[in-house]
Amino acid sequence: MENINIKFGRRVKELRLIQNISQEELAFRCQLSKNYVSDVERGTRNVTLKVVEKFAQGLKVPVHILFRWHDDIDE
Amino acid sequence: MENINIKFGRRVKELRLIQNISQEELAFRCQLSKNYVSDVERGTRNVTLKVVEKFAQGLKVPVHILFRWHDDIDE
Repeated sequence: MENINIKFGRRVKELRLIQNISQEELAFRCQLSKNYVSDVERGTRNVTLKVVEKFAQGLKVPVHILFRWHDDIDE
Repeated sequence: MENINIKFGRRVKELRLIQNISQEELAFRCQLSKNYVSDVERGTRNVTLKVVEKFAQGLKVPVHILFRWHDDIDE
């Protein structure tokens, strides 16, 4: 099973690119550093729920959307 | 906005009770201590994604199900 932080980071990046915003812009919206956002997108941080909430707010999506991955076979 | 750890803990407890299993049983399945599970259900821990993954596996649900809260108005 692929690392949950890798999957989360990939989903954050995907949603960011759909919204056509930069890592800098997302970092600003989330009140996080650009380096931290970059680390999260690469899956190199073990993210806490407080940070998950910041990404949901920054990307303007409900939290569960951040966990909708393409390999979920059970809809 | 209610604390994300409170919402997560409430959802874990709800899913555990639906499955009619004890905190001890869930702790065993997740390879966590019973006290830790109790803390998470009360929302007193800032849970990491590694721990979220353990709960998803212990409850046998996809991760996003743990973030489906009753106050999500956007389905």
